[in-house]
Amino acid sequence: MGENKQEEGIDKSNIRFYKAFESLSLERMEEVWKHSDNVVCVHPGWDLFTGWMSIYESWATIFRETERIQFHITNTKIRALENMAIVICLENITTIVNENKIRMGVVATNIFECQPTQKESGWLMIHHHGSAMSNYMLPNTTNHDN
Amino acid sequence: MGENKQEEGIDKSNIRFYKAFESLSLERMEEVWKHSDNVVCVHPGWDLFTGWMSIYESWATIFRETERIQFHITNTKIRALENMAIVICLENITTIVNENKIRMGVVATNIFECQPTQKESGWLMIHHHGSAMSNYMLPNTTNHDN
Repeated sequence: MGENKQEEGIDKSNIRFYKAFESLSLERMEEVWKHSDNVVCVHPGWDLFTGWMSIYESWATIFRETERIQFHITNTKIRALENMAIVICLENITTIVNENKIRMGVVATNIFECQPTQKESGWLMIHHHGSAMSNYMLPNTTNHDN
Repeated sequence: MGENKQEEGIDKSNIRFYKAFESLSLERMEEVWKHSDNVVCVHPGWDLFTGWMSIYESWATIFRETERIQFHITNTKIRALENMAIVICLENITTIVNENKIRMGVVATNIFECQPTQKESGWLMIHHHGSAMSNYMLPNTTNHDN
């Protein structure tokens, strides 16, 4: 597989994660992640979750408490290895909490593992680390990359 | 190299990073990192820095503004690949800012790349992502792992 083709697949998996998040559907989030004991998730401001079972519970909590959330992903950087890919991106988030519209920026490190036996789902998430930016500024929407 | 021996080397490199941070010495921090254009660093609450030059500048700023900082590293998890290692750990931090002692918890994703030609410095940091925990509780110091 060419380098560009591989990066395209990784980028698609990264976007699939945010689409699952936007959908607030646990079934869709389930399809994105590897269901293993050593996957890792850090939500902004939270402690670390390890293992799919506790990560699944954390998404259930977040989805229950979220009315609506939208992501505009920018500044994506991909480092592709043979079976693993490290993605860095900026999550420009618009969310509604208690009827208030909130805009925030989160920097994310997302790591995916290649699943050679699963043609459909190709790269599965094994690590998500998000951290809120305190000095966040809205992106210039006339010059975005996603 | 055995798996345990490899993990030991990675853990040592991770600790070396925090010792460099405690020393507030740019020379020591320089020895820890790979000096490449695509290394990545996210300090808690900050935007993303890419490339060694801008990461170096960010450490210069942090070191200039820090009087003293101490790390007690716990909950270390290592995922070792052939040439790369992903480390997750909890930074239990005691720092002095404007003569006030502050205790905080930061979850870190640290990624190291193996440098086969450099026996001494073995694993070099290529990615550091730290995020402050809002619900941080001090560790039980009678039951710590570092």
